[in-house]
Amino acid sequence: MAPPSSEEPAAAQSAGAGAISKVLVVIAMQTEALPLVTRFQLVEAAADESIFPKGAPWTRYHGDYKGLHIDLVWPGKDPVLGVDSVGTVSAALVTYASIQLLKPDLIINAGTAGGFKARGAGIGDVFLASDVAFHDRRIPIPVFDSYGIGARKTFETPNIVKELNLKVGKLSTGDSLDMSPHDETAILSNEATVKDMEGAAVAYVADLFSTPAIFVKAVTDIVDGEKPTAEEFLQNLISVTMALDQAVMQVVDFISGKCISDL
Amino acid sequence: MAPPSSEEPAAAQSAGAGAISKVLVVIAMQTEALPLVTRFQLVEAAADESIFPKGAPWTRYHGDYKGLHIDLVWPGKDPVLGVDSVGTVSAALVTYASIQLLKPDLIINAGTAGGFKARGAGIGDVFLASDVAFHDRRIPIPVFDSYGIGARKTFETPNIVKELNLKVGKLSTGDSLDMSPHDETAILSNEATVKDMEGAAVAYVADLFSTPAIFVKAVTDIVDGEKPTAEEFLQNLISVTMALDQAVMQVVDFISGKCISDL
Repeated sequence: MAPPSSEEPAAAQSAGAGAISKVLVVIAMQTEALPLVTRFQLVEAAADESIFPKGAPWTRYHGDYKGLHIDLVWPGKDPVLGVDSVGTVSAALVTYASIQLLKPDLIINAGTAGGFKARGAGIGDVFLASDVAFHDRRIPIPVFDSYGIGARKTFETPNIVKELNLKVGKLSTGDSLDMSPHDETAILSNEATVKDMEGAAVAYVADLFSTPAIFVKAVTDIVDGEKPTAEEFLQNLISVTMALDQAVMQVVDFISGKCISDL
Repeated sequence: MAPPSSEEPAAAQSAGAGAISKVLVVIAMQTEALPLVTRFQLVEAAADESIFPKGAPWTRYHGDYKGLHIDLVWPGKDPVLGVDSVGTVSAALVTYASIQLLKPDLIINAGTAGGFKARGAGIGDVFLASDVAFHDRRIPIPVFDSYGIGARKTFETPNIVKELNLKVGKLSTGDSLDMSPHDETAILSNEATVKDMEGAAVAYVADLFSTPAIFVKAVTDIVDGEKPTAEEFLQNLISVTMALDQAVMQVVDFISGKCISDL
């Protein structure tokens, strides 16, 4: 095997040439997380194993699976309201804390998403995101505008795409489940096929700390369709989570025994 | 002095009854931060004093001032684009890391803001925020809607308000400098007098870790006025920063030698 070339991205270099050993799965909702916990036979970290500081609602499950150590984290329930702590702020925080404390070789951000049928998305489709960007951070000052959009390419995994026959598309992230006209304009400009509430924030943090990250997103609702998003989202959440679960397992099976540069 | 009553908020209790010794000032932009660095004669943490992990652009200045240890942090320049890392994600991250590493008794989030003249704000006014909320996290599912708005009361400081004669108003936070019609509806519903890009995220993190936080916001632009926000913001940034600087110094002077419960 050839030594790493200087053209390789920093993230790939920092992960080294050895086989991947630690995978961090970042998931926003409990409903999305639990099937994967079962699938990989992970156990919830006990109170005395907690790596997160007191006060953080973040929850970690962990275990060994086919030669990999898997940590699955989700931002937990809001301490006051009791709902999943969705959105960019919570996702960024738990990703940051997990990178620092667990030093993963690879991050998989998995979750449900809205899809655009005009770009070929259908309910239950699973996408790997080639690019991420924000659609609700408008800062109309030169250069700040680009910072707000925060567009970045994700870690490239041509072999996963080829082997698993996953759809590939751009992902746009915002803190609202619905889509305002301003959001829509930005999403079109981001050329997004899927829309979520966490991806670009996870990618931002992963990039700061040179950790390769991939984004597996399953479509629960058609944004440019007839049905209201919230209704369609809740209707399809359980069944689409099964497709997501299946895809994440296939990705992890593929990763097992491989190097970062093999993905 | 009476022992703390059980009605006191958790944050005040955890800070204990002793005089405040460590103050964390969280600021989003370098232009806002540097006058305070000079005013308090803080020094930038040298590379070998860095408390933040490699990769984080977050910058810390520190020093002693009138019996207080002050750490002033700002999220730094974006590593790729070179502009200030404004907005909720960066502010949440640097606040989280600073709380964990510095264990402050009190957080002051200081910065510039847009003001609503319909609610009595004028250019150069300095507000203490009584409440914070988000205006760009719309999640139209019961309970998730409240989580998205994230409304919370800030730590109450009746003596600071009285002594310094500061204006008091509600603060609404979003990741855009401009204001879309959807944002406007939410800001009205939040009853906000001032609008910024970080406050509610700082408050969220401070609350998770039971750290009292106050919000000092100086008005650079009138949102419900004639001039475009970006233009007015840039025009007034320097002069309004001086008003902000002055107010923060007065707040810190007031805090010096006092307990959390004296504020």
